Amino acid sequence: MFSQVIECVPNFSNGRDPEVLQKIMAPFYAEKEVKVLDYSQDEDHNRAVVTVIGTAAGLERSMVRAAGLAAELIDLRKHEGAHPRMGATDVVPFIPIRNATVEDCDALARRVGQSIAEKYGIPVYLYEESATRPERQNLANIRKGQFEGFAEKIKDPAWAPDFGQAEVHPSAGVTAVGAREPLIAYNINLGTDNLDIATAIAKKIRFIGGGFRYCKAMGVDLADRGIVQVSINMTNYKKTHLYQVFSAVKTEAARYGVPVIGSEVIGLLPMEALVDTAMYYLQLEGFETSQVIEARLLEDDDEK
Amino acid sequence: MFSQVIECVPNFSNGRDPEVLQKIMAPFYAEKEVKVLDYSQDEDHNRAVVTVIGTAAGLERSMVRAAGLAAELIDLRKHEGAHPRMGATDVVPFIPIRNATVEDCDALARRVGQSIAEKYGIPVYLYEESATRPERQNLANIRKGQFEGFAEKIKDPAWAPDFGQAEVHPSAGVTAVGAREPLIAYNINLGTDNLDIATAIAKKIRFIGGGFRYCKAMGVDLADRGIVQVSINMTNYKKTHLYQVFSAVKTEAARYGVPVIGSEVIGLLPMEALVDTAMYYLQLEGFETSQVIEARLLEDDDEK
Repeated sequence: MFSQVIECVPNFSNGRDPEVLQKIMAPFYAEKEVKVLDYSQDEDHNRAVVTVIGTAAGLERSMVRAAGLAAELIDLRKHEGAHPRMGATDVVPFIPIRNATVEDCDALARRVGQSIAEKYGIPVYLYEESATRPERQNLANIRKGQFEGFAEKIKDPAWAPDFGQAEVHPSAGVTAVGAREPLIAYNINLGTDNLDIATAIAKKIRFIGGGFRYCKAMGVDLADRGIVQVSINMTNYKKTHLYQVFSAVKTEAARYGVPVIGSEVIGLLPMEALVDTAMYYLQLEGFETSQVIEARLLEDDDEK
Repeated sequence: MFSQVIECVPNFSNGRDPEVLQKIMAPFYAEKEVKVLDYSQDEDHNRAVVTVIGTAAGLERSMVRAAGLAAELIDLRKHEGAHPRMGATDVVPFIPIRNATVEDCDALARRVGQSIAEKYGIPVYLYEESATRPERQNLANIRKGQFEGFAEKIKDPAWAPDFGQAEVHPSAGVTAVGAREPLIAYNINLGTDNLDIATAIAKKIRFIGGGFRYCKAMGVDLADRGIVQVSINMTNYKKTHLYQVFSAVKTEAARYGVPVIGSEVIGLLPMEALVDTAMYYLQLEGFETSQVIEARLLEDDDEK
């Protein structure tokens, strides 16, 4: 494994042409210090999501090239899809995984953002942990108005780009780049088919409703199972913990006499979230992640 | 990392001469497919414990050589110490960690046992998962009588060795070799200084007292903290789970009005034990170890 592991999940505005996506991804495959973990295209959203891991240097080289290829191969003037978007390369998050900090990812995001602006004339906005203004932390705020609205929005001094001229790239739009913590997609299932209850609980536990700082949530109907679900995005599991959210959902569900019948993690989660969960429930004292055999095996790799 | 990881924790009967231990360990350092994780010598016990990991092939080559060196460098006729022992190489457990099964470790134990007997004339007993008779599963049964008593014990047909002649090696004694599951050393702290309560709880939860199949336990006085502890060896965490033991100790402690104030893991534990714990307490549905990022990073290594 690489001595340093940063995850990058670029979103490109093409969900319908696999050949275009493969051309855009070529720099990732060609880069020795990067490995492609996953990619998918969604026709309705007309959007591709790519997951790669690698060193800061490897990601910098390959991500800048991929953004250049996306600018060549995607024309937003002809793009339509269900998912909001503002650029050919729409958003580029960098996430610390191993031997890397959010600060490392922030520095990487700035270097990549500057290169994309300078090389291809695409205005770049820094978002999340890299945001230069509070209102730019939330990607939805930056993307508001989308590609079509940006010609005007970018003239507003409040929305001057962090890198590049205040002029939208005619076909490739604008791009958001930033560092963020790993996100855990975590859902909690309720023993009821009443969507109102899931929605009410979601509103109570999420940040905007007065709940946890790093928790986004909504109620979802799982009609085929005849139950409802509180669907959660844990945006910083190191500060808002899985056990806190699980316990809070149980507490809220109790007022409706509804049981929590299970939970699920969608996609990947860092081992630290498991360590954290075990430490809480088993009341573990002084436990270190380095006591996990698999963590030790990865450390041995680092020495090589 | 190696494509396959087996752990081996040989115990040698020398706790007082670091040079002797280094000479015995030389084959581990020299072997490319083996890595030394830890070693320690205890003067009172007059015993050394070495922890190495590696492939079956690498461990077979180096462990057989190390046993030969131990037979050259340790004379049990001159050995005294607090810990029971019967051989220069006293016991050699093989433990599956990654891409290896107990069956793989059992096959390895038999090859190593046979080589030690044939090359050095040391009788070998197979124990734990490799035992050929039920009474040989427990190492304590095999070791009963120790080095001094074995000249007579080995003549008893019931104690004929699994490999080699029924004749103790004059200076190196006899050796036990076997496969076993990873062991987790897990302690649960009670909010009382009454050792009788810790002892009573230990007796209730452990196998010999009617408790869990893969649980050994005893009460321990932590005088400096003014509390007592149920000190536990989890001999198969895949079948007797951490949460079961933790919960059972809470249940027993409740009858004395005593709180569980914490727990601790001593040394290493496999990530699967954490996955297992999180799955129980968070009621996780359909979670796979491969969803843990660190597991994915190790898998990528396997591909190389």
